[in-house]
Amino acid sequence: MTKNVWLAGIPLAIGVGYVAAAFAQAKPEVLVKQRQAAMTLQGKYFGPLAGMAQGKAPYNKDTVVRNAEFLGALSKMPWDGFAESTKDEKSVKTAALPAIWKDTDKFKQAQQHFEEEASKLAQVSKNGDEAAVKAQIGATGKACGGCHQDFREKQQ
Amino acid sequence: MTKNVWLAGIPLAIGVGYVAAAFAQAKPEVLVKQRQAAMTLQGKYFGPLAGMAQGKAPYNKDTVVRNAEFLGALSKMPWDGFAESTKDEKSVKTAALPAIWKDTDKFKQAQQHFEEEASKLAQVSKNGDEAAVKAQIGATGKACGGCHQDFREKQQ
Repeated sequence: MTKNVWLAGIPLAIGVGYVAAAFAQAKPEVLVKQRQAAMTLQGKYFGPLAGMAQGKAPYNKDTVVRNAEFLGALSKMPWDGFAESTKDEKSVKTAALPAIWKDTDKFKQAQQHFEEEASKLAQVSKNGDEAAVKAQIGATGKACGGCHQDFREKQQ
Repeated sequence: MTKNVWLAGIPLAIGVGYVAAAFAQAKPEVLVKQRQAAMTLQGKYFGPLAGMAQGKAPYNKDTVVRNAEFLGALSKMPWDGFAESTKDEKSVKTAALPAIWKDTDKFKQAQQHFEEEASKLAQVSKNGDEAAVKAQIGATGKACGGCHQDFREKQQ
């Protein structure tokens, strides 16, 4: 019975919506919000690193290691949110360009390149010297931009 | 000069906004959006685990390990977004209750409890048997709910 007691508690504890979402194909607008959430957090954790790489903020190894670790995880999170079902989704404002669903191979390559650079940054940040870390921050930033260039509407 | 070439490329590559954000205190509405992004992704990766723990979806160890690893990182991301400066922020819809800034010790304890349960889930998911993993999914879900109970507006 112990097992049933805690199982019964889950829906109340986390809200029925999350559990329900596990059993159905996620709605397109949910997928868009989730992928945007991942991008928002990538910005949160990459911004300070870019500032350090440019010498506009003091270098702080603890921050670099933590942010790079988070980026390593976040770099993998947006992509299933670009499902075919979201191609014509209009209820959420999005800067995603049609090229995402036309030039899928190139989009996938750009994703993988970013994941690799972010993963390398997480590794280098732990043991690399400051110059090596800053170089890898630059490489990671270019990988962000490499995807935005072709697959995101130009930002104002 | 090599160094300057790639440094100069960063603002174009990632967009000026992210870099600018690194040098200024983040605006309250940005903090709210970032903390909500972390919660959105916690929901994305916890939902399927709750479904498995409840026996409503088939158990899949690979999914559990991946989602639990992501949750371990995501469990640490929302909290600096509940800065005092966001207490009266009205431009973004939020379910955050005033208790967050009144009962700060209790809020911090609830955060830490959730981080600990999520971290334990990431560990157990790798080597634990299915029953142990499901029990820890339950414990993690209760930790989500333990914080929502006192610090988030009731959801419809």
